Amino acid sequence: MKVSKTVKAILAQYESDNPGTKANLARMLSTGKLAGTGKMVILPVDQGFEHGPARSFAPNPAAYDPHYHFQLAIDAGLNAYASTLGMLEAGADTFAGQIPTILKMNSSNSWATTKDQSVTASVDDAIRLGCAAVGFTIYPCSDQALDLFEEFTMIAEEAKAKGLAVVLWSYPRGGELSKAGETAMDVCAYSAHLAASLGAHVIKVKLPSEHLEQPEARKAYEAGKIDISTQAKRVAHVMQSSFNGRRLVVFSGGATKGTDSVYQDARDIYAGGGSGFIIGRNTFQRPREEAIAMLSNIIDIFKGKA
Amino acid sequence: MKVSKTVKAILAQYESDNPGTKANLARMLSTGKLAGTGKMVILPVDQGFEHGPARSFAPNPAAYDPHYHFQLAIDAGLNAYASTLGMLEAGADTFAGQIPTILKMNSSNSWATTKDQSVTASVDDAIRLGCAAVGFTIYPCSDQALDLFEEFTMIAEEAKAKGLAVVLWSYPRGGELSKAGETAMDVCAYSAHLAASLGAHVIKVKLPSEHLEQPEARKAYEAGKIDISTQAKRVAHVMQSSFNGRRLVVFSGGATKGTDSVYQDARDIYAGGGSGFIIGRNTFQRPREEAIAMLSNIIDIFKGKA
Amino acid sequence: MKVSKTVKAILAQYESDNPGTKANLARMLSTGKLAGTGKMVILPVDQGFEHGPARSFAPNPAAYDPHYHFQLAIDAGLNAYASTLGMLEAGADTFAGQIPTILKMNSSNSWATTKDQSVTASVDDAIRLGCAAVGFTIYPCSDQALDLFEEFTMIAEEAKAKGLAVVLWSYPRGGELSKAGETAMDVCAYSAHLAASLGAHVIKVKLPSEHLEQPEARKAYEAGKIDISTQAKRVAHVMQSSFNGRRLVVFSGGATKGTDSVYQDARDIYAGGGSGFIIGRNTFQRPREEAIAMLSNIIDIFKGKA
Amino acid sequence: MKVSKTVKAILAQYESDNPGTKANLARMLSTGKLAGTGKMVILPVDQGFEHGPARSFAPNPAAYDPHYHFQLAIDAGLNAYASTLGMLEAGADTFAGQIPTILKMNSSNSWATTKDQSVTASVDDAIRLGCAAVGFTIYPCSDQALDLFEEFTMIAEEAKAKGLAVVLWSYPRGGELSKAGETAMDVCAYSAHLAASLGAHVIKVKLPSEHLEQPEARKAYEAGKIDISTQAKRVAHVMQSSFNGRRLVVFSGGATKGTDSVYQDARDIYAGGGSGFIIGRNTFQRPREEAIAMLSNIIDIFKGKA
Amino acid sequence: MKVSKTVKAILAQYESDNPGTKANLARMLSTGKLAGTGKMVILPVDQGFEHGPARSFAPNPAAYDPHYHFQLAIDAGLNAYASTLGMLEAGADTFAGQIPTILKMNSSNSWATTKDQSVTASVDDAIRLGCAAVGFTIYPCSDQALDLFEEFTMIAEEAKAKGLAVVLWSYPRGGELSKAGETAMDVCAYSAHLAASLGAHVIKVKLPSEHLEQPEARKAYEAGKIDISTQAKRVAHVMQSSFNGRRLVVFSGGATKGTDSVYQDARDIYAGGGSGFIIGRNTFQRPREEAIAMLSNIIDIFKGKA
Repeated sequence: MKVSKTVKAILAQYESDNPGTKANLARMLSTGKLAGTGKMVILPVDQGFEHGPARSFAPNPAAYDPHYHFQLAIDAGLNAYASTLGMLEAGADTFAGQIPTILKMNSSNSWATTKDQSVTASVDDAIRLGCAAVGFTIYPCSDQALDLFEEFTMIAEEAKAKGLAVVLWSYPRGGELSKAGETAMDVCAYSAHLAASLGAHVIKVKLPSEHLEQPEARKAYEAGKIDISTQAKRVAHVMQSSFNGRRLVVFSGGATKGTDSVYQDARDIYAGGGSGFIIGRNTFQRPREEAIAMLSNIIDIFKGKA
Repeated sequence: MKVSKTVKAILAQYESDNPGTKANLARMLSTGKLAGTGKMVILPVDQGFEHGPARSFAPNPAAYDPHYHFQLAIDAGLNAYASTLGMLEAGADTFAGQIPTILKMNSSNSWATTKDQSVTASVDDAIRLGCAAVGFTIYPCSDQALDLFEEFTMIAEEAKAKGLAVVLWSYPRGGELSKAGETAMDVCAYSAHLAASLGAHVIKVKLPSEHLEQPEARKAYEAGKIDISTQAKRVAHVMQSSFNGRRLVVFSGGATKGTDSVYQDARDIYAGGGSGFIIGRNTFQRPREEAIAMLSNIIDIFKGKA
Repeated sequence: MKVSKTVKAILAQYESDNPGTKANLARMLSTGKLAGTGKMVILPVDQGFEHGPARSFAPNPAAYDPHYHFQLAIDAGLNAYASTLGMLEAGADTFAGQIPTILKMNSSNSWATTKDQSVTASVDDAIRLGCAAVGFTIYPCSDQALDLFEEFTMIAEEAKAKGLAVVLWSYPRGGELSKAGETAMDVCAYSAHLAASLGAHVIKVKLPSEHLEQPEARKAYEAGKIDISTQAKRVAHVMQSSFNGRRLVVFSGGATKGTDSVYQDARDIYAGGGSGFIIGRNTFQRPREEAIAMLSNIIDIFKGKA
Repeated sequence: MKVSKTVKAILAQYESDNPGTKANLARMLSTGKLAGTGKMVILPVDQGFEHGPARSFAPNPAAYDPHYHFQLAIDAGLNAYASTLGMLEAGADTFAGQIPTILKMNSSNSWATTKDQSVTASVDDAIRLGCAAVGFTIYPCSDQALDLFEEFTMIAEEAKAKGLAVVLWSYPRGGELSKAGETAMDVCAYSAHLAASLGAHVIKVKLPSEHLEQPEARKAYEAGKIDISTQAKRVAHVMQSSFNGRRLVVFSGGATKGTDSVYQDARDIYAGGGSGFIIGRNTFQRPREEAIAMLSNIIDIFKGKA
Repeated sequence: MKVSKTVKAILAQYESDNPGTKANLARMLSTGKLAGTGKMVILPVDQGFEHGPARSFAPNPAAYDPHYHFQLAIDAGLNAYASTLGMLEAGADTFAGQIPTILKMNSSNSWATTKDQSVTASVDDAIRLGCAAVGFTIYPCSDQALDLFEEFTMIAEEAKAKGLAVVLWSYPRGGELSKAGETAMDVCAYSAHLAASLGAHVIKVKLPSEHLEQPEARKAYEAGKIDISTQAKRVAHVMQSSFNGRRLVVFSGGATKGTDSVYQDARDIYAGGGSGFIIGRNTFQRPREEAIAMLSNIIDIFKGKA
């Protein structure tokens, strides 16, 4: 595995990590069609757990099979594949070594009666499955936020000690947050900063809107004359809020939508200096060839070719 | 113990498991009259704990004796016998090695004031009793669901590390679920998928009805033109939802009923590609000879002979 | 210590236990005037903790001294003495080896604001005090029942691994149970079955009344034509519910009452095949000579001589 | 260090303790002006934590300095000095070996919103600070009582295993207890018995009033014709309730008051056979010379000379 | 590193600490322009976590970069830099050995729905990052106070055993405390005493106002004729309440304000014998050169030169 200068520069930002963790970050950054560019496209598949199999896989029944997703990520030339314990176990041997995997360590589901998550795997599970990283979700505004931070802290410490990379999904929701606030600029930047402060290597947030949720933050944005008028500028501000770009941040675009809209998101992330795209339902709910074509275009965008 | 080609093909689906766990799955699949067929009939006896001894055993008082159930499972040629700690301890020596046992690790009872379970055994108890597997129950929709998932996660990790198989009873109840929802098609398929995602080797669900509980799932079923018009087709859809058939799924039929109804259930499971039947009260509450005759017919159905 | 054939037959029912635990069961069954008969009379003294010292010991002030109870149990020829940590510590050296002791591991008190217990000793405390067994109380119907089961499960596993016997006080109370339900036939039989299912070696329940509490259980009793018309038959039904007599079950009679009533209880337990009597306040609240005389009569009853 | 016959007789009552714990009990009983008498006067200083520094130390500002209390206890010839972690750490080296210390393991403060305590030290802290004992507070009637018992149980087991003595402050409060009930005769005797039952070596209670709180206890006192008409007789009854005098019990007199009243308390404790006095605010809130003179008189009372 | 006589005298007050902890206290006291004086100025940066990045860093965007703060603390000649896990990880290698760091072990954020904190790092994290100390925040009056004390107790014990110093932010809030009470004289002195009693090496409190919150404390202040009429005298009283000056206490001035006001605070702390200043937003929200000039003046004040 060749590690490019760009990747080496990124690794150098992870000043406190051991060689095992750096090697796993390097694996993700040096795999697939974006290898060496410092950019990443990741396939996440935990929607079956979160929303149920019919809502997730009925549009493209081949996706009921866990092998489908491994193969899709490999064939599309992605950087990594993230999923739940059972989904990764089901292909761990067949696809061993073919693509870096991220074990989602906690999950919720559509029946949950609180804004909370259940820890459904261990760091040692990630080790025995040969994963490059563990993934974890926090809900920064929920009543359970402080507990989720503590769970993450313990898992991240163990993962780092065992040479894994740590990916943190930072999804504001719950508490007194409005629905619009879940994608508000200030809330998104704060969520990314929290993830960086908690010690995540790779941060996952949603693309932010122009909305500002917190009155005191609004004042700071106005006083600081922070330009958030375009999606690309909002991405750039998220990167700034993530230790001035010292941390990898990948963005998601949310629910299924048209390809043009997806491409525009990718272009804005690229233009704003974001580290990449994490895209699930928009790929595996399309027919395979269509999904691969779309991912090919996205990759070209992140290569600066489209 | 001979391991058939069919069983070997099933074991190959468990890609991440160690030889100990595979050997225990093989033990269950290679025992009794269905040995080698890939099908299973399992006797579960935790009704004394769940509903009390009189409601469970008074119809057939011989069943008050824990030895009765071991012997029934052996004489009927079943694949495995599942029960609570005390019940297994009471026959552990007499029947050692005669039939694979599954230690039910958690239980509730008819006095419980929450939709929760109590962990009433340890993985090491299963080891010292020579069990082939541990069994666990989750209530996917209850307020305690996220906690139950976490308990299962810890137990399953330990059981797998110690070479045991893991059977997961996935019983939706509680929260906002309606009574009809407990056996709804979408809920049952989701519950099976959750069990697979949590890393279960063998999944236990109830036979689903045609009812669809969740509005958003209903849309997916209609859009996907998923045929759930017959019980056999519903079984097939549960198998699809269980990693496209990569996981063993056994079905239960619920409360005591007539033999014809039981046989029809068995035929539908078989026709739908289900892995087998788990049947308790319908056997041990009948006189022994009658139960054995009925189980013999069920086994013939799963052999494709009836 | 001679182990009689009767005791050997009882030990053989404990199929999963190690020689250490069997030896401690044998110690209790082979001590005192009932040694070798398979019957037991046990002195329990935790009333000072549960109800306070004045209510417990003022009627017979000699009983304020922990040594009094050791000596009473020894002089009366009982099988074992059960008490709290502090009470056993206070005589551990003076009476070392003179009588098997049971360390009560949890206790409540008359001020408790929930139907719960506090774990007030450890299994290692029992080991260092040379106890033959640990004792534990569950409240099967209370809101804390599932938690109490889990605490017992952990303690029982450790105790068995360390070669101790496990005595389980199964006292239904709390939740939706009526006062009459606390001694109802169905509830008592269920409680005994729960204790057996949880893996107890010796079960302690109250003598049941003819009352049936649970409507569904009532149907089962009527359908099964279970005869519970006399106290002896009710004892026999509790034994049946305790793994068809495979587990030792000792009965208590409750609050202080006249000797005739106590003797009748003992005769009914004996006639119903119960394993013995556990009798506290009715002994230590009487003058010592009177208590010893009464216990002598009770022992004669359990020898079949009275 | 010479151990008197009286002290040896006391140590012999601690039948289950290891030589380390007995040596530490002996250290406390063989230090100061009461060495060898079997009586103890202890200085406790946790009022700064419980009520704040101004209310505690402003009356005698020299007492703001942790060294002041060590020196006071030494110069007055007391048996032991009890305080919080920080207070003991602050003099641990200067006064090493000069006086036995008791580490208060839990504390509350005047802002607490529940009748609970916080565990603010560990047994290993006591070991590294060279303490003779650990101290712990329970609130027998509070909603947190069962939890406090469990915390004490774990700490006491560890302390005993590590050769420390265990002092238990048993302070009834909370729940349904009336204010008068906090010092009621029945409640105090019950609290002392609870402490003994929980395995404490030294019990600390308040001097009881003649009030009887619990109706059922009142009956027992009347039926038993227990004489509680004088403070000395009430002390004697507390000793009786503490395993018939087999446990050391020290009494406190509460808030600051006149010296005559303090001396009368001391005389009553001595007359009733109590083990000693634990006296804080009444000493360190007075000028040093005055406090030492008062303590000298108290010590004379416990020598039977005043 | 030279350790001055003044610093040696301070270290001697930490009687119970091991050489590792003393060396780390010495590192902080012997670094920067105040090295050897016994005074400290510390830069804390956890406002991004607590209030969000825009409110914290937008006024001076260079401060979005974690390296900025390390460099500011070094260039200004401060004693130590305190921050969260992620912030310290981001500069751990670049600035290794250049300035003592304090790992903030717990944090809250502006969305928290309770007066609680989340433990977001471990003592071992501090060790692997080469920190001199761990930092922790308690909210003495909140409903979570007793739990926070317990968390601190466990962390402090581990940190001391591993040779780290322990800094405790003692911030009264929540419960029945009024807003004015959060900086009341009595409350501040009590909070400092609590921190000392809990075993902190360095205590961080806010500068107190003349307000007295607790009626009983007010009486003690009046009876004791404690002079709290000037800020310097209030600082002196906090030092007195911190074991009569045996513990290092650093003060903060709160939100951003004018430099004159900051200098006056510094002069009052110095005049009252306080150990130093902890100053965050007032420095990093100003342009770098302005901040360094201001810190230079503050340092001169603590040298007694301004």
